[in-house]
Amino acid sequence: MKVLIVDAKNQILGQSKAPTHRSKRPSGMVNDIIALLDDAVGEAGISRRQLSAVSIGAPGPIDRHRGVVREAPNLGWLDFPLGPEMERRLRLPVIVENDVNVGTVGEHALGAGANVHDLVGIFVGTGIGGGIIAGGRLYEGSRGGAGEVGHTVILVDGPRCGCGKRGCAEALASRTAIERDVRAAIKAGRKSMVPQLMKRKHKLRMTSSVIDAALKRKDPVMREVMRNAQRYLGILVANVVNLLDPECVVIGGGLAGRLGEVFVGPIRKTAFEYFLRGKDVQRIRVLPGQLGDNAGALGAVVLARQRLALV
Amino acid sequence: MKVLIVDAKNQILGQSKAPTHRSKRPSGMVNDIIALLDDAVGEAGISRRQLSAVSIGAPGPIDRHRGVVREAPNLGWLDFPLGPEMERRLRLPVIVENDVNVGTVGEHALGAGANVHDLVGIFVGTGIGGGIIAGGRLYEGSRGGAGEVGHTVILVDGPRCGCGKRGCAEALASRTAIERDVRAAIKAGRKSMVPQLMKRKHKLRMTSSVIDAALKRKDPVMREVMRNAQRYLGILVANVVNLLDPECVVIGGGLAGRLGEVFVGPIRKTAFEYFLRGKDVQRIRVLPGQLGDNAGALGAVVLARQRLALV
Repeated sequence: MKVLIVDAKNQILGQSKAPTHRSKRPSGMVNDIIALLDDAVGEAGISRRQLSAVSIGAPGPIDRHRGVVREAPNLGWLDFPLGPEMERRLRLPVIVENDVNVGTVGEHALGAGANVHDLVGIFVGTGIGGGIIAGGRLYEGSRGGAGEVGHTVILVDGPRCGCGKRGCAEALASRTAIERDVRAAIKAGRKSMVPQLMKRKHKLRMTSSVIDAALKRKDPVMREVMRNAQRYLGILVANVVNLLDPECVVIGGGLAGRLGEVFVGPIRKTAFEYFLRGKDVQRIRVLPGQLGDNAGALGAVVLARQRLALV
Repeated sequence: MKVLIVDAKNQILGQSKAPTHRSKRPSGMVNDIIALLDDAVGEAGISRRQLSAVSIGAPGPIDRHRGVVREAPNLGWLDFPLGPEMERRLRLPVIVENDVNVGTVGEHALGAGANVHDLVGIFVGTGIGGGIIAGGRLYEGSRGGAGEVGHTVILVDGPRCGCGKRGCAEALASRTAIERDVRAAIKAGRKSMVPQLMKRKHKLRMTSSVIDAALKRKDPVMREVMRNAQRYLGILVANVVNLLDPECVVIGGGLAGRLGEVFVGPIRKTAFEYFLRGKDVQRIRVLPGQLGDNAGALGAVVLARQRLALV
């Protein structure tokens, strides 16, 4: 979880960060969020009363009109009224939107996609999420569920996805898929320094930092697995461009944040091979995100200004 | 080519239809279009001077601001100014839009998708095309190229598509793909009555009518090939729904027009298996088009009213 306190010009006055601890009751996590908020308020040297609003990016599908998180399996939330609960505790207007949607709004308004009308954000981490900006505004679809690029199938009958289906982009190219494929290769007898790197960094999972280190040391297994993931992501980018014809696709999330052009370059190359004909194709830009893990919080602020008509 | 003459209430006053003959110069086809227009005007019992505007759905990517067909390989057109040429000849305002986009507008405004804000049209014929209605309006993307569902990859490294890439939906589930797979099965020694049906109907291609007849006679090869195509189309529908979250997907084109629910039923079943979680999924409708081969012309009329502010 990350909290930013920003002023009217989106300058960051204070911030705080903590791992998400799943608690037995949703209200336990609300306590954690408010404690983290107070840390950031303290760092900014202001008081809670000086805040105009609180805007939150939360996982899962959101009922934005009621501020309800409809389903967040990783948090154990089902139809949890996060917005109303926070409003009751803080006595401030509270906005709740999907975390990937606010990340896309952040990169659109303040990051890689500034001055663009039609943009798609693809965030690659443990999963793959996406957000759509159409005509300068977040496009939410009819039930607030638009943007699920990670659960579009690009390899029918491919590997099983966390969602239960097979062949979703998330099951082929997320950090989770990369970890699965590296482990399988090692189990099959391929030599790799990844287990040793994880031990040295005291990591139980193949984090972006482990992946980065393995690529820098030219670990053959990681290089091969990463090349495959990047090819799938390039085809995913092309699918989205052929369907929506945006000016720009921003690749965000931890891997893009850490690896930058090393991650995005090969994705862009494959995407251009799969773009549909047309002379204007060169105009389409495929860029790494610029805001790192601030994208979500900054996007939430931008969205709050739009929805609450704040300055 | 099909021409409709309609009144202010979209009632059809006259119509005409002719096969498209590719001619050496684009102006040859303009002559054909105008001759066909005059047939329909005659059937309506009016004169050309009584027309308010002409609105055309044309294949390929369109520069709608200039009325230019940017690329239509099947017609041999490259950057052909169809709109200005027709305006010069007819002295009437002329609108040009992509044929699948106008088909989608037609089904949205007057057919299966009436009273819906967010809709995707998928037209299955010799190719697979699509159109997107977002917030009640045609969504064209940044270069007028949105909606190319047929060229999204759903089976990486799958069969070669007409666009040059592999694994596009069009290469898996169009009528062309169905014909290819039926011919391959017969060549491999499978027994099928399809060649005989084609001969009896004097068809060189596996038209919708041939496919319909083969399915009615329970031809085992056609049934199997069709089941596969329908499964791919169901996954394509789910991809589009997971990405765009529309209220409704309309399946149009020749096969849907002739087979109706026999074609769309199995597509819908697979789509629902692939829709992402969420209680509201049941609300999404997957419907056959209602306007048949009038969808394009009627949609062109609706679009002309919007763009020219006609009543």
